[in-house]
Amino acid sequence: MSEPVAVDAMGGDHGPGETVAGAVVARRELGIPVVLVGHSGAVRAELTRHGAVGEIGVVHAEDVVPMTERGAGAVFSTTTSLTVGCDLVRRKEASAFVSAGSTGAVVSCAIHGIGRAPGVLRPALAIALPSVTGGATVLIDVGATSDPIPEMIAQFALLGASYAQLVLEVADPSVGLLSIGSEPGKGNRLTRRAGELLAGLPLRFCGNVEGHDVLAGTVDVIVTDGFTGNVVLKNVEGSVRAALTLVAHSGAAGAEELRAVARRYAPEAHGGAALLGLIGTVVVAHGSSRAATIARACAVAHDLAEGGVVTRFADRLTPEAAR
Amino acid sequence: MSEPVAVDAMGGDHGPGETVAGAVVARRELGIPVVLVGHSGAVRAELTRHGAVGEIGVVHAEDVVPMTERGAGAVFSTTTSLTVGCDLVRRKEASAFVSAGSTGAVVSCAIHGIGRAPGVLRPALAIALPSVTGGATVLIDVGATSDPIPEMIAQFALLGASYAQLVLEVADPSVGLLSIGSEPGKGNRLTRRAGELLAGLPLRFCGNVEGHDVLAGTVDVIVTDGFTGNVVLKNVEGSVRAALTLVAHSGAAGAEELRAVARRYAPEAHGGAALLGLIGTVVVAHGSSRAATIARACAVAHDLAEGGVVTRFADRLTPEAAR
Repeated sequence: MSEPVAVDAMGGDHGPGETVAGAVVARRELGIPVVLVGHSGAVRAELTRHGAVGEIGVVHAEDVVPMTERGAGAVFSTTTSLTVGCDLVRRKEASAFVSAGSTGAVVSCAIHGIGRAPGVLRPALAIALPSVTGGATVLIDVGATSDPIPEMIAQFALLGASYAQLVLEVADPSVGLLSIGSEPGKGNRLTRRAGELLAGLPLRFCGNVEGHDVLAGTVDVIVTDGFTGNVVLKNVEGSVRAALTLVAHSGAAGAEELRAVARRYAPEAHGGAALLGLIGTVVVAHGSSRAATIARACAVAHDLAEGGVVTRFADRLTPEAAR
Repeated sequence: MSEPVAVDAMGGDHGPGETVAGAVVARRELGIPVVLVGHSGAVRAELTRHGAVGEIGVVHAEDVVPMTERGAGAVFSTTTSLTVGCDLVRRKEASAFVSAGSTGAVVSCAIHGIGRAPGVLRPALAIALPSVTGGATVLIDVGATSDPIPEMIAQFALLGASYAQLVLEVADPSVGLLSIGSEPGKGNRLTRRAGELLAGLPLRFCGNVEGHDVLAGTVDVIVTDGFTGNVVLKNVEGSVRAALTLVAHSGAAGAEELRAVARRYAPEAHGGAALLGLIGTVVVAHGSSRAATIARACAVAHDLAEGGVVTRFADRLTPEAAR
């Protein structure tokens, strides 16, 4: 039996009420071993409501990192649910860590508490977005590293390609660089230099892609910096919702059919983003996650840990890429 | 009678066939005075097809800037349709210039050939995107300046607010800064510093907005750098198209109703982006523009020139903002 997935009971906009409920769903309905990390009093009160005391373990953490914490400040306390959760992964007492806490704080705590994989400069958050063609495209980085240097973006491409191999089951994923013109050399300084580096990597690099390619199934992996990637991810959600609202207002389609499309691109559709580049598995769930999303994030984390996604990255990080 | 709008006959993916047809539509159907700039032989051949020789003036330009030109290189030739067109505006022989050429090249030629408004560090491209709430949001910059410094983003906000006053007819437009978290201080280095500057400007600044706010009608103006803005603009187009394709596949709605929504966010919906911050009026049309889009871009250019949008900016650029 594998180690449990550690779930941050304190993270997210809705607190232990939703995170504990999510862990209960993951355990009972998805059969995933979980352990809750957070203030034991609050967590046990929620477990009692579900009749799950004794069924799901609790690791006490005295403190909580507020959702407004951007990152660096969160690593100095060893008693928060974030630092305690990451420590469980480091000590291999948990197979993975799931949190709906502040992205910046989760990333900082994961870097410091779990550690980067050998050669990795910075981790990146990856999400698989469904495309209109029926497949999916991995978008990386969606918010772990908002000011990367070009060498980091080149590494994100390698991390994204490994992730696509695992989650999309594509043997040799195609990779596009998100930019503002399809010709090589178009883009901002960061992107132009990243494009030069990507051309020299052992990757099926297809050059620049643009904003309209994100859902078009143009490539298997789209790589960008964490600022642009996060804006784009949320813009996809907002744009799809806007389009469907307009169709609904026109009275042209049934509400149920529209909801089905909306769900594909809702924040809770993907469960959470995989934080890649560490020597342990971490999944960052949306801050607004409800119980079902937390449960799905547990399933993603469990699959990643089982799939050995961490060791796959190490194989791909060539000395040139890791420079 | 006002000076004509100069139309770049050579720019765009489809060449004089579409640009000349667009100018003819602008003249005949929209009543806008236009003059075509390009190789006179090629332009006259197209005018002949429309029976419009003598009806629409032609200013000869010997050379063409290729669509792959990123910018700087385009300013060194004085014989291209871009430099000749911008020169017409500078000499006030045209009220505005419309081009579907390479954005980078148009921006460079406009800066050098027309000149920046007093105090403006760099121009920015603005587009009004319809929101689900029925109004619109001005997105600025969508691609003129891909590597701005924070002071430029603060100026873009002032330019965007003036533009919103003109095109949205909002007396005191609200302005949001596109970032990756709603709390102040979230974002990349560029955005965090820009946010500090924006807080000190004579603007109704509402703090950070996120990718899902672009079509939600949250604010009247969303300001960002030209790289992120261009990616977002194209992502809106692609995401809306993807959502509607999925609805169509589900069979839940009629094709005509879906096309109506798609058209709202198609590249040709807005005619073109207004290049703000110059002492003349320039509209950049999408490279893939067909005749109808070129005609609409002429109408936008004509309205901007008539509306005195250029002089409005000068009034807003306070010494602090122009620093």
